[in-house]
Amino acid sequence: MINKLVQKIEEQSAPIVVGLDPMLDYVPEHIIKKAYSEKGETLDGAAEAIWQYNKGIIDATYDLIPAVKPQIAMYEQFGIEGLKVFKQTVDYCKEKGLVVIGDIKRGDIGSTSAAYATGHLGKVNIGGKEYRGFDEDFITVNPYLGSDGILPFIDVCKEEDKGLFVLVKTSNPSSGEFQDQLVDGKPLYELVGKKVAEWGELHMGNAYSYIGAVVGATYPEMGKILRKLMPKTYILVPGYGAQGGKAEDLVHYFNKDGLGAIVNSSRGIIAAYKLKGYEKFGSEAYADASRQAVIDMRDDLKKAWLSAKA
Amino acid sequence: MINKLVQKIEEQSAPIVVGLDPMLDYVPEHIIKKAYSEKGETLDGAAEAIWQYNKGIIDATYDLIPAVKPQIAMYEQFGIEGLKVFKQTVDYCKEKGLVVIGDIKRGDIGSTSAAYATGHLGKVNIGGKEYRGFDEDFITVNPYLGSDGILPFIDVCKEEDKGLFVLVKTSNPSSGEFQDQLVDGKPLYELVGKKVAEWGELHMGNAYSYIGAVVGATYPEMGKILRKLMPKTYILVPGYGAQGGKAEDLVHYFNKDGLGAIVNSSRGIIAAYKLKGYEKFGSEAYADASRQAVIDMRDDLKKAWLSAKA
Repeated sequence: MINKLVQKIEEQSAPIVVGLDPMLDYVPEHIIKKAYSEKGETLDGAAEAIWQYNKGIIDATYDLIPAVKPQIAMYEQFGIEGLKVFKQTVDYCKEKGLVVIGDIKRGDIGSTSAAYATGHLGKVNIGGKEYRGFDEDFITVNPYLGSDGILPFIDVCKEEDKGLFVLVKTSNPSSGEFQDQLVDGKPLYELVGKKVAEWGELHMGNAYSYIGAVVGATYPEMGKILRKLMPKTYILVPGYGAQGGKAEDLVHYFNKDGLGAIVNSSRGIIAAYKLKGYEKFGSEAYADASRQAVIDMRDDLKKAWLSAKA
Repeated sequence: MINKLVQKIEEQSAPIVVGLDPMLDYVPEHIIKKAYSEKGETLDGAAEAIWQYNKGIIDATYDLIPAVKPQIAMYEQFGIEGLKVFKQTVDYCKEKGLVVIGDIKRGDIGSTSAAYATGHLGKVNIGGKEYRGFDEDFITVNPYLGSDGILPFIDVCKEEDKGLFVLVKTSNPSSGEFQDQLVDGKPLYELVGKKVAEWGELHMGNAYSYIGAVVGATYPEMGKILRKLMPKTYILVPGYGAQGGKAEDLVHYFNKDGLGAIVNSSRGIIAAYKLKGYEKFGSEAYADASRQAVIDMRDDLKKAWLSAKA
């Protein structure tokens, strides 16, 4: 699956993943009204609104992007109805040929990690027949519990030709509280990064490993160090745009081959119609605004890459 | 909710939480057969089997225990059908007066943590009406992302009179890979423990905080130190029994008031009928075996406590 991701990134010259993190107040009024009139002002109605909103964005952007990253929390907040739409979104994106990174940040140990891996990447066997739960292509996982927590996920990735992105250095302001603490003179995130590189050796694709890392766009100096520490690790980069990460800061997250990183934007794309510079689209054409935001992001990253190489 | 938990622990003289972590191969044949004949050999059938199995255990033990801890991964592995049974289990346990600790180990940042908190502890507002997703009483959370990840959960706990258990030192063999690394001469878990105590001050019950900690039974020396470092923090202790934690090791997880810790057992109770010493119950009476295992665990903890005090 990492090979497919790399291939799609190359084909589209777009190391971009669209974060499908819908909030009800991003959803345009006309979609909300229609969903509520069909399914009621209920969890079901809210979930339907989110589904229609997602579908519009996917239809308007899928030919420009290699991957999407639905954030499961945004669906889980609506309980079962929300999770049905998470699944529907995963399935629809895969139909459209997109690589789906489930941003689920799960992490536990032993048989419990194995159960999460089964639910999100693998299959259960019931009476001789196989069934799949959520069936994403990649998922994000949390490393706090150590190898016992990660290896069961890797086992399922091997069986299923799927992959992980392990949290290393997150994009939020307080990420340093624990991640930056010095261990033998080096920050903890470097130790975690080294482990990710080691785990990565257990499941290699062609040039890159199936076991990737999450490194926030908001800490470019750390990104530069981590890039060198994990040369064969694909880096998923949150924090571009709304959170403050700039394209020129991101060039060092890539290897010399122009690969090795994929940059996420969520609100900046899915709610572009609400942002400065995209007002002209209006809420009816919100999906066109999202398409334009993808093009602008692609060009922004390309420009920064070319000017850094010059 | 911490006050309710403490009160129930005192009433029942049982600092015990039963981990409802069902695996299909724990479920007795007669339950599996009935479920498959009613709902087919499908995800739905498997979920029904797990529900009937859980219900039997809850009915047989609820009057002896203060709390249950369903592990969501075990339900999530069956996708939507599994998560419906998670919800059904949460609701049924609450009807029976039990405190429900959702073992979900979620952790993200900002609005994403807020969304998880909403889905598991809080409510969404749709068209002026309130809806609840999973609605547990407590949940477990992962601290790797720092305060940005935890504070949104605490906000919802305050609004809803609910609580958290934050992972500090987990029970698994590799937990030390990151958690034990020395930071200024002290292990990282102590730093996390101090933070939990600080966060705890933000939301106090009577004698204990709503913000608890997870500290594994398998590291008793560390438990002793963490107990002192977090005097007002309730400690949720996994790892007793099957994972190797012994009652005599656990006395130091409690304060002098005999409170301050609640010990989890999962397989040792829910699959007791498969374990040495409980074979006489047989699979038909699996729930009676679970009841006996609760009584034995209660007595084991009490004996250790009395002998440590003597």
